[in-house]
Amino acid sequence: STRTSPNSPPPVIHYYLNNLTTSDDPIGNREKVLVLTPVARFYDEYWQNLLKLNYPRDLIELGFIVPKTREGNAALAKLDDAVRRVQTGSKKNRFSGVTIIRQDFDTPVPQNEKERHARPAQKERRGAMSRARNSLLYTTLGTETAWVLWLDADIIETPHTLIQDLASHDKAVIVPNCYQRYTEKGKEKVRPYDFNSWHDSETALAMAEKMGPDEIILEGYHEMATYRSLMAYERTEGDPHHLTELDGVGGTALLVKAEVHRDGAMFPPFPFYNLIETEGFAKMARRLGHQPYGLPNYLVYHYNE
Amino acid sequence: STRTSPNSPPPVIHYYLNNLTTSDDPIGNREKVLVLTPVARFYDEYWQNLLKLNYPRDLIELGFIVPKTREGNAALAKLDDAVRRVQTGSKKNRFSGVTIIRQDFDTPVPQNEKERHARPAQKERRGAMSRARNSLLYTTLGTETAWVLWLDADIIETPHTLIQDLASHDKAVIVPNCYQRYTEKGKEKVRPYDFNSWHDSETALAMAEKMGPDEIILEGYHEMATYRSLMAYERTEGDPHHLTELDGVGGTALLVKAEVHRDGAMFPPFPFYNLIETEGFAKMARRLGHQPYGLPNYLVYHYNE
Ligand SMILES: Nc1nc2c(ncn2[C@@H]2O[C@H](COP(=O)(O)OP(=O)(O)O)[C@@H](O)[C@H]2O)c(=O)[nH]1
Ligand SMILES: Nc1nc2c(ncn2[C@@H]2O[C@H](COP(=O)(O)OP(=O)(O)O)[C@@H](O)[C@H]2O)c(=O)[nH]1
Ligand SMILES: [Mn+2]
Ligand SMILES: [Mn+2]
Repeated sequence: STRTSPNSPPPVIHYYLNNLTTSDDPIGNREKVLVLTPVARFYDEYWQNLLKLNYPRDLIELGFIVPKTREGNAALAKLDDAVRRVQTGSKKNRFSGVTIIRQDFDTPVPQNEKERHARPAQKERRGAMSRARNSLLYTTLGTETAWVLWLDADIIETPHTLIQDLASHDKAVIVPNCYQRYTEKGKEKVRPYDFNSWHDSETALAMAEKMGPDEIILEGYHEMATYRSLMAYERTEGDPHHLTELDGVGGTALLVKAEVHRDGAMFPPFPFYNLIETEGFAKMARRLGHQPYGLPNYLVYHYNE
Repeated sequence: STRTSPNSPPPVIHYYLNNLTTSDDPIGNREKVLVLTPVARFYDEYWQNLLKLNYPRDLIELGFIVPKTREGNAALAKLDDAVRRVQTGSKKNRFSGVTIIRQDFDTPVPQNEKERHARPAQKERRGAMSRARNSLLYTTLGTETAWVLWLDADIIETPHTLIQDLASHDKAVIVPNCYQRYTEKGKEKVRPYDFNSWHDSETALAMAEKMGPDEIILEGYHEMATYRSLMAYERTEGDPHHLTELDGVGGTALLVKAEVHRDGAMFPPFPFYNLIETEGFAKMARRLGHQPYGLPNYLVYHYNE
């Protein structure tokens, strides 16, 4: 830790949890945001988008966790370069802190989209992702963190006001709609990408009822129809600030009040009410009394491999 | 956060989880220990015992969380004094860091021993204690923490080698036996105090089977006989390093590898497999593949009100 330099007296930090605001005016109240990103691949578009967020940099800390695979090594080298450029540049453009964590456990499954979305691999893969998210979160969450923004390394386009837009609703957990751009017959189109933000259904709850405690329900597999309503399909051209209550959330972009994580809401690496990772997190937040919300008409975009 | 002073460049911390050892020789390997204490009352005997631990101070960070009650104010004043004395004294005697957190939610129940142990109060009280423990943990756990020692503010006597003794077993979660000294007819005696360290029973598992998800099983109440074997009663004059596998653990003194908490094992404030707080933590650790152990013959002592 850099907290104690050899010549200064060791600090006594006094920290008053109730002096920490999370409000609908986070910039006005100088609320600190921790942006957390698990990184298997480094995309320059992700980094450029991050740099364009217009939340004050001195209120942003960044945290990354990188797997110890060959792909991870390559991502780390690029990430390191990018971080160094910003943090050694003009002082007013620097982030208030950057932590890069190297994962100490293996990722079980290959990284191309088709293979990693194959159903049998999901429990193990999302369990490992949960451990990575928890390690990153609980190593970097500090005494002054007000908000945690989860932002996947393949989210390459968001409004530049992402943080303050999400925070403006003053919700404990809030998630935008994650889409993907693609081209069809020379035409630029968008389609839903992340199916983990949903409203529960009687069918899914009945499925869980019949499952053993170690089984998980997954969204988006034909052989396991849950009849949940997916936020992915609720998008209209209407008000981007239209809110909807959610039972499951995705983590590609996700704003969480730090107190929710401090209370103990984490990403369960094991089936929790037959849910795992970000969907299990939403359930845990609900168990702790924090209702998650979604913004169906507010879009962020996932990389197209 | 004190990490960034205004005149130094903002830090980039690189942190390699797999370079962090937790071993049976924590002093030899310079492993950092975070000692965490929820504090409703300040006992000088607790502080004197803490000061006598002979683990190197430059490897120890302390973290406290104090409720915002009148009793908490009094405890905070005393704690502040005690901390200031050590941290402004001779450099070689200072702890490497101290964080004091003021709780931002109320404690529901009065603090005398009889009332706080009354069964109806337990779920709410231990739920609040869980939130306090999680907030403390997840605000102070740092990039370099190797071990977390939970030590209640009313543990007033332990061997001075407590940390290295517990660590020497190199277990993910390990708990000593928590007793209490008392006097009977002028004779000094000891008796078991903490009943939360136990081996599960068929009866308790069957009880849980029949319960709703919001109910909890509590230990030590006649009207709810669990037939679990309690470590409290397994103590002999034999080898203090005799180990036993446990299903539930108490938290009066408890050593945990930081990776277990980083993986996401926390103190469930809600019923988790019908268990709560430290007992729920043990279950969560097991779900994450970490077996808890106890040392029935290794004693620490709780204050006698
Ligand atoms: N640290 C870490 N990050 C990973 C790992 N696998 C994927 N990621 C990152 O975690 C996020 C989500 O993973 P991704 O494979 O994109 O999931 P998908 O888009 O839901 O299929 C992305 O930011 C990835 O770069 C891993 O094993 N370790
Ligand atoms: N922060 C905080 N600490 C508490 C609260 N209530 C008790 N404590 C502390 O938590 C630990 C366990 O509580 P205690 O009342 O001793 O539990 P018992 O010995 O199991 O009956 C002790 O260190 C207390 O000082 C609370 O509401 N907030
Ligand atoms: Mn992705
Ligand atoms: Mn006590």
